[in-house]
Amino acid sequence: MILIGERINAGFKDIKEAIVNKDGDVIKKWAKIQADAKATYLDVNMGTASKDPETLCWMIEQVQSVTDLPISIDNNKPDILKEAIPVCKKPPIVNSTTAEMAKLDTLLPIVADHDASIIGLSMDETGSPPNVEKRLENAGKIFEKILEYNIPPEHLFLDPIVMPLKYKQDQASSILEATAQFRFFSDPPCHIVCGLSNVSIGAKHKQLLNRIFCTMLIANGLDAVILDVTDKELVHAILTAELIMNKQIYADSYIEAFE
Amino acid sequence: MILIGERINAGFKDIKEAIVNKDGDVIKKWAKIQADAKATYLDVNMGTASKDPETLCWMIEQVQSVTDLPISIDNNKPDILKEAIPVCKKPPIVNSTTAEMAKLDTLLPIVADHDASIIGLSMDETGSPPNVEKRLENAGKIFEKILEYNIPPEHLFLDPIVMPLKYKQDQASSILEATAQFRFFSDPPCHIVCGLSNVSIGAKHKQLLNRIFCTMLIANGLDAVILDVTDKELVHAILTAELIMNKQIYADSYIEAFE
Repeated sequence: MILIGERINAGFKDIKEAIVNKDGDVIKKWAKIQADAKATYLDVNMGTASKDPETLCWMIEQVQSVTDLPISIDNNKPDILKEAIPVCKKPPIVNSTTAEMAKLDTLLPIVADHDASIIGLSMDETGSPPNVEKRLENAGKIFEKILEYNIPPEHLFLDPIVMPLKYKQDQASSILEATAQFRFFSDPPCHIVCGLSNVSIGAKHKQLLNRIFCTMLIANGLDAVILDVTDKELVHAILTAELIMNKQIYADSYIEAFE
Repeated sequence: MILIGERINAGFKDIKEAIVNKDGDVIKKWAKIQADAKATYLDVNMGTASKDPETLCWMIEQVQSVTDLPISIDNNKPDILKEAIPVCKKPPIVNSTTAEMAKLDTLLPIVADHDASIIGLSMDETGSPPNVEKRLENAGKIFEKILEYNIPPEHLFLDPIVMPLKYKQDQASSILEATAQFRFFSDPPCHIVCGLSNVSIGAKHKQLLNRIFCTMLIANGLDAVILDVTDKELVHAILTAELIMNKQIYADSYIEAFE
């Protein structure tokens, strides 16, 4: 399972303040905490705290000063990406593009040039997908485009667009079904990823909802997730789901071995 | 979700002793505990403690003296069932038949006569099914036979045969896939059930494995389960998976409301 740590994001108050105050220590702290929790990638997002490519580059440098983990660059502005990607010591994931043609034709050449990966959101200019069919249509458009730019399927992370269960309860089954279908676009398949925490927005039992939804998505083929990697129960649930899917060899102490 | 409480089973030492000593209190205690934990059915199994139909009838009477819950009669001997079913105040589930023709032709008329339900194990005289195809073949045989005896699909509980992950790790994906396929036998579909605890035989993290596997099965259409209904974390996981599948209307306090 590819675990993309979500915590270095200006949506969190301490990260926003760190950006404003140019305080690298907070960013390094979260890079270390998430690396220790066994993240595979670290997402880096400057949100509304800055529009300056230099800020994002600085954040990436802070992360890379304490860990070798690759970066998920949480930005879709071509001019920012062109500066931030070369700063990455390992090929990053670009997070993200929608299925809009203009966006794909701008972002994919940059991704291809740098041997990077990209998260493809199964939504377009009309907004969030209302059903399975629209998710598949959008994902199909993205898939076709990456082939056109010679980006291999394993560099694509399709995202079924997770919505809050509290407000869009009927969407959860569509998300599960779309995930199951994404697997069949190619063999070997592309990755399937989601922003997990969205499912529990506004909910009371957030962590329970996150981890149960995650295991149900894994049953349908999810192999990457943007998550709170410090949520131990969530990580244990993921490890268990992976054993069940026969992705890791069973050992009695599989959790202890991971930790 | 149909929750079948597994605890009144002579495989447990206290139940075996209660049978030997004709001590109804132990059986009543477990009937109450499981009813309080919100079981839908209570499984009753006299195991090797007795071969006398009277013993099973006595056990069912103990249960019915403290709860109105229907019974899952865990026995497949026609002479025993013919005596035990009439003792049940509500139509029971007969647990279980395999796909063997002789067994089906003996058990199904009894089930049909009493408006009972039956668990159909997707295995036959050759033993446990080695793959998805054999599970489907066996389940299909059972499905065909219930129609022949005018038993409605909603009185059939197909079981994909859960195996211990520790010893048969590759079977888990087959079980998930077979469950997904069982849904398509009819519309409305028959029930899909499993003996959940089997997945964690010999494992270290039993409860974690039980609850993660259960939610993955629910994602594929499982709607009934033989379980330790007193395992609160398991029940919470099931409630959450049902919300995700849109089987219950979302409420912030869905767990508190259930309890």
